[in-house]
Amino acid sequence: MQAIDSLIHARWIVPVEPDATVYEQHSLAVNEGRILEILPVQQARDTYSAAVEHDLDQHLLIPGLVNAHTHAAMTLLRGIADDLPLEEWLSRHIWPAESRWVNEDFVHDGTQLAIAEMLRSGTTCFNDMYFFPDVTARVAAHSGIRACVGMIVLDIPTVWAQDADEYISKGLAVHDRYRGDPLIRTLFAPHAPYTVSDKPLEHIRVLADELDIGIHMHVHETAAEIDKAVELTGKRPLARLQDLGIASPALLAVHMTRLTTDEISQYAASGGHIVHCPESNMKLASGLAPVAELSRAGVNVALGTDGAASNNDLNMLGEMRSAALLGKAVSGDASALPAAAVLRMATLNGAQALGLGEQTGSLTPGKWADLTAINMDTLETRPLYDPVSQLVYACSREQVTDVWVAGQHLLKERRLTTLDANEILERAHAWQEKISHV
Amino acid sequence: MQAIDSLIHARWIVPVEPDATVYEQHSLAVNEGRILEILPVQQARDTYSAAVEHDLDQHLLIPGLVNAHTHAAMTLLRGIADDLPLEEWLSRHIWPAESRWVNEDFVHDGTQLAIAEMLRSGTTCFNDMYFFPDVTARVAAHSGIRACVGMIVLDIPTVWAQDADEYISKGLAVHDRYRGDPLIRTLFAPHAPYTVSDKPLEHIRVLADELDIGIHMHVHETAAEIDKAVELTGKRPLARLQDLGIASPALLAVHMTRLTTDEISQYAASGGHIVHCPESNMKLASGLAPVAELSRAGVNVALGTDGAASNNDLNMLGEMRSAALLGKAVSGDASALPAAAVLRMATLNGAQALGLGEQTGSLTPGKWADLTAINMDTLETRPLYDPVSQLVYACSREQVTDVWVAGQHLLKERRLTTLDANEILERAHAWQEKISHV
Repeated sequence: MQAIDSLIHARWIVPVEPDATVYEQHSLAVNEGRILEILPVQQARDTYSAAVEHDLDQHLLIPGLVNAHTHAAMTLLRGIADDLPLEEWLSRHIWPAESRWVNEDFVHDGTQLAIAEMLRSGTTCFNDMYFFPDVTARVAAHSGIRACVGMIVLDIPTVWAQDADEYISKGLAVHDRYRGDPLIRTLFAPHAPYTVSDKPLEHIRVLADELDIGIHMHVHETAAEIDKAVELTGKRPLARLQDLGIASPALLAVHMTRLTTDEISQYAASGGHIVHCPESNMKLASGLAPVAELSRAGVNVALGTDGAASNNDLNMLGEMRSAALLGKAVSGDASALPAAAVLRMATLNGAQALGLGEQTGSLTPGKWADLTAINMDTLETRPLYDPVSQLVYACSREQVTDVWVAGQHLLKERRLTTLDANEILERAHAWQEKISHV
Repeated sequence: MQAIDSLIHARWIVPVEPDATVYEQHSLAVNEGRILEILPVQQARDTYSAAVEHDLDQHLLIPGLVNAHTHAAMTLLRGIADDLPLEEWLSRHIWPAESRWVNEDFVHDGTQLAIAEMLRSGTTCFNDMYFFPDVTARVAAHSGIRACVGMIVLDIPTVWAQDADEYISKGLAVHDRYRGDPLIRTLFAPHAPYTVSDKPLEHIRVLADELDIGIHMHVHETAAEIDKAVELTGKRPLARLQDLGIASPALLAVHMTRLTTDEISQYAASGGHIVHCPESNMKLASGLAPVAELSRAGVNVALGTDGAASNNDLNMLGEMRSAALLGKAVSGDASALPAAAVLRMATLNGAQALGLGEQTGSLTPGKWADLTAINMDTLETRPLYDPVSQLVYACSREQVTDVWVAGQHLLKERRLTTLDANEILERAHAWQEKISHV
């Protein structure tokens, strides 16, 4: 008998890799934070002596979900301005609220609220873009969740930095602080083609090459943004990014709702990734990403919620459902974006886009034990003919019972183990009082 | 002090009628199953002596949700065949499964499961179309939910009837049995233009006129159905229904995803209602209903989930969110289908479409006390700037805590009071075993 840290026995295990695989009545063995193997329950009990055993006899165990695009701290602006067009929403509501309220405390409290919500809905890794990434990293590290923290860059001054050089140098300081951390990564996060000029983008490209890290950027979110770029520069934003060498396997282009057929094949050839945010794109009427075509062209498509100010939740279970439904509606093909494909988008594809494909995103021996368990024994998920279908089309976030990141049990029968839910609620309420009484 | 049955004190009350109204710290007084009035908490305590008082101090109280189109018993086929085009889904999976399995027990058990799910997600009234409407009515009446039971009509023989005449006469028997019942209504439910010929439709029109009841029918669900009708008859289905006099204030046309500009204005002139089923339409890639245009043209648009075999849930909270998001995406206008408008679609518009506008659908004195309470004090719904926005964009079905129909407390702190959840789960599981082991 081999002594290990834990054995998780589950009714169903869907490892995502290999594809189209569902293990029934199997166990997942974990040691030192990593997945050892998946094997039948009895065999697991005969092979391993585990310090802890978990019986998830009505549950589906999947890789923890990867939210590949969010602005975590913006949960504090959840619902502050709904049902408005993107330009008015941004310039008349979000930016003024941000310039008035964003500071280190805001980012601390908003990010904690976001992480609590993400863990409670099965997310084990998120890719963030916001001010004070040092605070985001600190809060994430304390919670135990896996996080990719964006070194945000803009041309314009904000509370975080005065100019592109300062954004970059402050970002690099965060990068240095977390180098070697098993949970916290940093990516460059130039906000968008229309807010970052060529010089800083060139600088970022060189640094990203040297440091071997990704570039996380909003690209082609709306038609207006593309039209304005063409008017000003004669070039569509994606073409400019291609000319600057930014379109590469390092790029996570978020949104990409407006793409010509040529752009799809050129982007596929560049090796860049896409982060699809269906709910935010619908809510802001930004446009519809041609996900089925992008996937067919060979582009790796990950999934993100965007911030809670344009969603208005950080629930990747719901985002999978929306991606599947919208993908069918947009392509006119009910077999487009089947359940297993969106689960892959929400796990392995996200990990690969973030450069974490060897670390997380599937239940593969050697990867970190980033795991999510969902109770399938509810009225709303019975009868059950196919666990993956049920997960995507019928489950609700509250069915997530347990979450582990690198083997640490962060959500235990729906209780957060590293975060104080009451304190987070109280602080969210205090912000609400402050922000709404202006 | 006036003695009454109950007082419900709530943090927020949204009556839907009048429009754009949110009462804070108010009470709703109920007597003999009906709403007496809404008034400030202290004033309510001074005015009424209630046999029961409910303190919903973190809750939003709204009119119970009206699911204007479903096939309740089909919950037993939830997830049996996903990610398939409508024609293949219907003819290769759903119809064969139905002809093999549908009987009185199937309808009993499936409808009970559906009602349990609907009550647990805040629905107090549903409009059904399925075989054995007598069983649906009996199960609904026993549960205490409000139901409109469809007198289904098809040209083809099924387990329920042999020909259109038998469908109609068996339907009328159900109608007679529940005449005068405060909770159960019957509507005609000719399945679709392509499954019901002119003669029975004419007969239904005459009977619906005489009995003053509605006609519930799938219309223009897919392009293929319209093309086939044009090929066979030279007429689009809606034109045929207009010629037959079926398009009238009695008609609830479900889906209506393919409409010309002329059809929109003609349908508006006919006074007919539309039931929009966004999730089913997306999942089956049927098409996109022009909801914003229909509303602008003055058509009353209600909301439905469709059956759980094409959704795969019966969650009207989620359906509101999908309707709002899809409405913005389709119209390219982020201000289309705002939160308050979709809440109205899911309550008052549904009641009006069903001929129940004087009975339910808003918190209006004199109407039945059909009520849904939602706990807003969760991490996922904080901060809260606008309760209606939060309801539509951030709430999840599990936040529904209490539901009343005609004053009867059917869901009490998430426990079903008239249905045995364990028994329902067991029977759903038994059907799953039977159906999946063929």
